[in-house]
Amino acid sequence: MRKGDTFELVYPVTPEVRDGFRQVFRDANPLHTDRSFAQARGFEDEVMYGNILNGFISHFIGEALPVRNVIIHTQQIKFIKPFYCGDELLLKAEIGEAVESVHAFIFNFSFFNQQEIEIARGKVQIGLI
Amino acid sequence: MRKGDTFELVYPVTPEVRDGFRQVFRDANPLHTDRSFAQARGFEDEVMYGNILNGFISHFIGEALPVRNVIIHTQQIKFIKPFYCGDELLLKAEIGEAVESVHAFIFNFSFFNQQEIEIARGKVQIGLI
Repeated sequence: MRKGDTFELVYPVTPEVRDGFRQVFRDANPLHTDRSFAQARGFEDEVMYGNILNGFISHFIGEALPVRNVIIHTQQIKFIKPFYCGDELLLKAEIGEAVESVHAFIFNFSFFNQQEIEIARGKVQIGLI
Repeated sequence: MRKGDTFELVYPVTPEVRDGFRQVFRDANPLHTDRSFAQARGFEDEVMYGNILNGFISHFIGEALPVRNVIIHTQQIKFIKPFYCGDELLLKAEIGEAVESVHAFIFNFSFFNQQEIEIARGKVQIGLI
């Protein structure tokens, strides 16, 4: 893994992901569960949990790198636009910094929806273990 | 909600949370699924997914505030120590900043395990909708 390496993965936001997240974390806030509440506030539909994206980052780091002996040190995300159940998200990530002396890597990432609108961006720093 | 308001919630890391997270996000990295792999790298046991904590933050923001018309703008977390299945985590959060002109609040938070060791800390900014 080197600075500048890029990665692309597709993450569909399925009903199974939405319902599984809701069941595990017991977040039934009406923004995520009540279409009329969400629409009354200007959203198209129930807004999906932003932290689903953090779960996709867990998968990306744990499963999609050329090495598996990794652990996350820090993670940050900015939610730019809402996303909805049924969206097919594209994660684009790039190694922005490789600190070889301490076996650490910083990835910059963005999620895009199927209209190629950037819905979130962030950084995740990992270490090799 | 005002600057200085504090919140405390207990989040048990149950097998159901671990298995549910694993099923939803399909992260089977051996650090999280293979005890011998984790122990060979100096951990007590399979390390739990750090992003379980971000799911708990989703619950905290969505369910535990005095208002429910909220949305997360940004979120960041630093993982300090590993945590394990069976741990009972205490989330302590405080409103560090209230920007009333734009209806935004910044929470500083930490998670502690049952030995009162801080395992993670971060910030989450929310807006009222």
